[in-house]
Amino acid sequence: MLKIVKIGGNIVDNPAKLQAFLADFAAMEGDRILVHGGGKVATAISAALGIETTMIEGRRVTDSRTLEVVAMVYNGINKQIVSSLQALGCDAVGMCGADGRLIVSKRRAPVMVGTEMVDYGFVGDPVEVNAAFAGSLTAAGHTLVVAPITLDGGVADGAGGGLLNTNADTVAQTLATAMAQSEEDVELVYCFEKQGVLLDVDDENSVIRRIDAERLKTSGAVHSGMLPKLENAFRALEKGVGRVVICAAENIARPGYGGTTIVR
Amino acid sequence: MLKIVKIGGNIVDNPAKLQAFLADFAAMEGDRILVHGGGKVATAISAALGIETTMIEGRRVTDSRTLEVVAMVYNGINKQIVSSLQALGCDAVGMCGADGRLIVSKRRAPVMVGTEMVDYGFVGDPVEVNAAFAGSLTAAGHTLVVAPITLDGGVADGAGGGLLNTNADTVAQTLATAMAQSEEDVELVYCFEKQGVLLDVDDENSVIRRIDAERLKTSGAVHSGMLPKLENAFRALEKGVGRVVICAAENIARPGYGGTTIVR
Repeated sequence: MLKIVKIGGNIVDNPAKLQAFLADFAAMEGDRILVHGGGKVATAISAALGIETTMIEGRRVTDSRTLEVVAMVYNGINKQIVSSLQALGCDAVGMCGADGRLIVSKRRAPVMVGTEMVDYGFVGDPVEVNAAFAGSLTAAGHTLVVAPITLDGGVADGAGGGLLNTNADTVAQTLATAMAQSEEDVELVYCFEKQGVLLDVDDENSVIRRIDAERLKTSGAVHSGMLPKLENAFRALEKGVGRVVICAAENIARPGYGGTTIVR
Repeated sequence: MLKIVKIGGNIVDNPAKLQAFLADFAAMEGDRILVHGGGKVATAISAALGIETTMIEGRRVTDSRTLEVVAMVYNGINKQIVSSLQALGCDAVGMCGADGRLIVSKRRAPVMVGTEMVDYGFVGDPVEVNAAFAGSLTAAGHTLVVAPITLDGGVADGAGGGLLNTNADTVAQTLATAMAQSEEDVELVYCFEKQGVLLDVDDENSVIRRIDAERLKTSGAVHSGMLPKLENAFRALEKGVGRVVICAAENIARPGYGGTTIVR
């Protein structure tokens, strides 16, 4: 059994919540990989350096200077998390997708968003995972901590080799999917600041306990911000991941994690 | 044979020089580990964030905000180097000392500098290296790329677990020394912007080809900025490292590297 746990930027940005989560995560048993988001630090540092941040549909437009900032910030956060886990007795090893070609991506071509053509810049969608490398570290007793930066495989333009900014939910799904090809049982857990997928986004008591693809299509009740996470969840299930849960970070130590279980 | 190569901040700060060096480094044969300095980016980003940089005897006084900046900057540089090496066909894996407890340090107590007591803050001196971990990655065909940030082992105050800023020359020496306990033959190569240790610091043709401890003491001719590097070199030789060379980064592909060979 391998657990891939993803924590979002809202947890990473809150030192008390992050520390509490890491204590629970360190105490978990068995093989696990932690994927973390970037948080708002990248935006703050970009602003201090005079780089304007442009977000379109919740995704960061990444020019070359922004890429430098996110590579620094995300990998800096990565090492803070690694050192906290080490202090908690968890033998963490941090990396991004470039290390050992853990996750190779293809730079995203410009896409239509509404009526406008948008070039997200140095943003990549994963095309290849070095599951054997990740598996060898896990088998040696290490806990991988992964920052959402990947290696440009240059599939599109023949250049490649640079870093690409990649959505952390997608990184977690891609890793889970790749590991499911060789691991017996892989579980993917998305932790964020809410209790789960909510029927009413303003009511933390309206957690939907189970969602399947059919219900998602017909209900129309799911908050649109959840759709990319749910798409990743369904893709993981289709490709052999045993179980996907969306839950609150503070429930990671609870049996079954509470939250919403995604089923096919 | 294992080569530990260190490049300084002046190379890291110069994209053209860095790229040329990495091409040579990627083409080298055999097991090798690259240790890199931080360069001036940390100072520039600190300034943009309103954090004043204080250097005393060439070493950065590291308060908690400065530590956050150097952890970001050094690990960001680390990933840029890793992605460049991957593009050059070298299977690089980047890490800092916190990852897998590669290098555990002890926070430096305040020291007298001249007539003043100086607290360098979050600065650490290595006390332990996980040579087995580094060796397992090297044996698997990976080239380790190491950023000069280490894990606070909390030896002094019982707390520990955070990151510490550590001199990159010392990181390279510590790794070389630790690896020399199990590897047959370890070579330590310090690459920087000059041709070697110079008899006259203003004359690049005055390279001293060989220095031993005796000559160092008696000549008095060595530029004082070289002393910490030479101290690390002699320590490495005393502890079983087979060969230490100080040379120009552009000569890394030359047989013997040119430069200055340090002998006991």
